[in-house]
Amino acid sequence: MTNEKAALQGIRVLDLTQFLAGPLCTMILGDLGADVIKIEKPNTGDPARETAVNINGQSVYFLGLNSNKRSIVMDLKKQSYKELFLKLAAKADIIVENFVPGTMEKLGLSYEEVQKVNPEIIYASVSGFGQTGPYRERGALDMIIQAISGFMSVTGEKGGRPLKAGPSIADTVTGLYATIGMLAALHYRNITGKGQHVDIAMLDSMFSILATPIGTYLATGKVPKPQGNRHQISAPFQPFETMDGEIIIAASTNRAFQDVCKALGRSDLAEDVRYADRKGRVANVDELADEITKTTKTKTTAELERDCESANVPFAVVNSIDKIVRNPQIVARNMLLDVEHPAAGRIKSVGSPLKMSLTPGAKRRSAPTLGQHTNEILGEQLGMSDKEIKALDD
Amino acid sequence: MTNEKAALQGIRVLDLTQFLAGPLCTMILGDLGADVIKIEKPNTGDPARETAVNINGQSVYFLGLNSNKRSIVMDLKKQSYKELFLKLAAKADIIVENFVPGTMEKLGLSYEEVQKVNPEIIYASVSGFGQTGPYRERGALDMIIQAISGFMSVTGEKGGRPLKAGPSIADTVTGLYATIGMLAALHYRNITGKGQHVDIAMLDSMFSILATPIGTYLATGKVPKPQGNRHQISAPFQPFETMDGEIIIAASTNRAFQDVCKALGRSDLAEDVRYADRKGRVANVDELADEITKTTKTKTTAELERDCESANVPFAVVNSIDKIVRNPQIVARNMLLDVEHPAAGRIKSVGSPLKMSLTPGAKRRSAPTLGQHTNEILGEQLGMSDKEIKALDD
Repeated sequence: MTNEKAALQGIRVLDLTQFLAGPLCTMILGDLGADVIKIEKPNTGDPARETAVNINGQSVYFLGLNSNKRSIVMDLKKQSYKELFLKLAAKADIIVENFVPGTMEKLGLSYEEVQKVNPEIIYASVSGFGQTGPYRERGALDMIIQAISGFMSVTGEKGGRPLKAGPSIADTVTGLYATIGMLAALHYRNITGKGQHVDIAMLDSMFSILATPIGTYLATGKVPKPQGNRHQISAPFQPFETMDGEIIIAASTNRAFQDVCKALGRSDLAEDVRYADRKGRVANVDELADEITKTTKTKTTAELERDCESANVPFAVVNSIDKIVRNPQIVARNMLLDVEHPAAGRIKSVGSPLKMSLTPGAKRRSAPTLGQHTNEILGEQLGMSDKEIKALDD
Repeated sequence: MTNEKAALQGIRVLDLTQFLAGPLCTMILGDLGADVIKIEKPNTGDPARETAVNINGQSVYFLGLNSNKRSIVMDLKKQSYKELFLKLAAKADIIVENFVPGTMEKLGLSYEEVQKVNPEIIYASVSGFGQTGPYRERGALDMIIQAISGFMSVTGEKGGRPLKAGPSIADTVTGLYATIGMLAALHYRNITGKGQHVDIAMLDSMFSILATPIGTYLATGKVPKPQGNRHQISAPFQPFETMDGEIIIAASTNRAFQDVCKALGRSDLAEDVRYADRKGRVANVDELADEITKTTKTKTTAELERDCESANVPFAVVNSIDKIVRNPQIVARNMLLDVEHPAAGRIKSVGSPLKMSLTPGAKRRSAPTLGQHTNEILGEQLGMSDKEIKALDD
C-alpha cells in the first residue's frame, strides 16, 4: 500500500505459527518488508480465525495479527506436503513455529532436518516454557504465563487478588523478543554466513520484565503485592480526583515535583522538607496525595490538563478505546489505516509503531483468507502447475 | 561472564537514555554483545540510580536495566563534551536517546548534526508521543501511556475502575519495539550501507498491542471494558476454586476443551451441545464455570495440577515473586544468574530470554557505577590521557 523501501526486502519467512505470540512476530517481519508465507492446516487454518467478533465472517483477532502475510494450506502430516515444505525451506531465510516442543521433531521437520537442506536457515521456536527444562512439554497460553511468571501477583487493586492485564501481554512481549532474536540472528548471518536455532519462551520473556519486583524481593525479602494505580518508586504518580472526573499526574524526579507544585500553585508543598526528595515523597505518599487532591478537587479535568501542559508536567486522562481511536496524536502518527480485505472489504488496520526514516514499517496488504495464495506461492517458488498442486491432495 | 560468541560483536552503541524504555533496549543490545557506552550527566547520572530499594546503595531498579554497559560521565551542555560526543559518534554504529523531542536539537546533537560526522549512523529516538504530531513535546512516563493508550481501560476487575498493570509495561513494550527498529535498520545498513533515524513512541507502541480491543470496538460499536481474570475470546480460561486454593485452567480450542473435560472426568460437559464450540462456551461461560467449579472444589490444587498435566491441559497456579524465583523451569533455563558488581558485590541478575544456539544473550558484566569507565573509554576510543580528560572539566 506504500512505496517506501523496506528494511527486510528479499527476506523470505516460512510461518507455521498460530494464535498470538508467533503471528505478532511474523507480522512485524512482514511490516518490515519480509515475504511472510503463512502455512495453515486444511479446513480450519489458524484457530484464531474462529473467534466470536468478526467482520463479514473474518475474525478481528486474526485480522489484527496477520496483515502482510500470504496464506498457503499444507497438511504437514502428509508425506507429499512434508517434501514440499523442505523444498520451500531450502529457499527460505527464516522459519518460525510455535507448536508445543517436540511437534516439529515428530513431523520430521526439526531444526536439524531443515539444516540438512538449508545450513544457513534461521529457525525460531516460540513456546510457553522453552525447548529445554522440566516444563518443556507443557502447553501454555497467555494467562497461564501471566499467572506462573508472577506478573499477576503484582497487578491488581491494593489489598486485592492477583489480576491479569486485559490485553495478552505475555504473548506480546514474547512475540517482540522472538522478533529481536531473529533479527539479531539475521545480523550474525549477514556477517558470518551462519544460521542458528532461536528458542524463545513465554515464561523467560515475562520473567525478564519483572526485574524490578524480583530485585526488590531479593534485596528486602518482602514479597511485592498489587499496588493498584500507585507507582512503586515515584510519588506523586497516580490518579487524582478532579471537580468532574480524574487526572493522572506524575513526577519521577525532584525537578518534576517542583513543576507539579508550580502547576497546582502549591509552593507550600514545594518547600515541605518531607517531600524534598523521592524517598520522602514515596514514604509520605498518602499525606502528599491528600494535599494534592485538596487542589485538584477545586478544578475541572480540562483546567488541570491546561495547567499541567503549560508547566510541562506529565499528565493523562484514562482513555477508553472509543476515545483513543479518535485521538489527534494517533491520527497524526498514522496509527489507524484503511486496508482492503478480499472478504471483509475496506477495514481499519492498526499501523506499525516502527517509524523509520528510510524503511518505515508499513501495511502492504491485509490478512489473507485461508489458502488465498496456495497456488500463487507453489507456482512462483516451485514452478508447480495448478494441476500438479491439485494432485497433492489425492 | 561467558565464552559464547555474540550476535552484535563489534557493534558500538552510544546510549543517552535513562529510566526504563531506553535502558531496556540498550541492555538487550548489550546482552547480544554490542559495546554499549552509557553517557550520564555529572553528579547524579541516570535518575534511576536514585530509588528507594537498593543493595549497598545501588538501586535494584537501575541494576536490573543496565548490565552489559560501561558508564562515562559527560556534561553535554559544555562545548568540550559536545565535541567529544561527536568524535565518539563518528566511531559509533548506533545512538539511542530518550529525551523529550527537541532536546537533542537544542544540544546541537540532532540526527542531522550527527549524520554530518557519520552518514551511516543509526540514530534512535525513543519518546512518549513521537517526534511528530501535536503531543510531541509532552513528557511521558509509563503510567501516563498505560492511561492514554486505552490499555488501562481494558484492565481491572469486572465492573471495576481502569487499572494499570503493575510492571511498567508501556516502557517495556516500547523498549522492545525500539530494539526491533534498530536491528532492522542495522540489517538495512548491512545490505545498503545506509543509516537512518528510528522514531519510536510509547503511545504508538501501546496502541499497536491493543489491536483486538480496537478491532472489536470498530466492528461492534461496543466499548471494551475490564473483564477481571476472564479471557475475551476463549472459555474456560480463568481461575477456578479448589479444595485448598485456586487453579487456572485454559482451553482455547475445541480439542483443548475435550481434554479439560477428560482431566476433570466430566464427559457430560464434553457432550453438552451448549459447549461444543468456542462461541457457545463464551456465550455460556458462567454456567460452564459453575459446572467446572463443582468438580474442582472436590480436589486439592496439587491433585488438579497432576490431572491437568497428564491430560495435556494448560494450567497454572498464580505464583508470587518469592515462588517464581525458585521455580525449577526458571532455574533450568538459567534465568537468574550471579554477577559481580563493584559496589553491590555478588548479586543476582535476571538472565536474557534470547536463547540462541550460536549467539545466546548473555550477562557479561553487571551495571556500572557512575562514570566507572570514563577514563577507559576516552583513552581507548580517542587516545586521551588521564591529564587531558581531567582538563575537560576546567
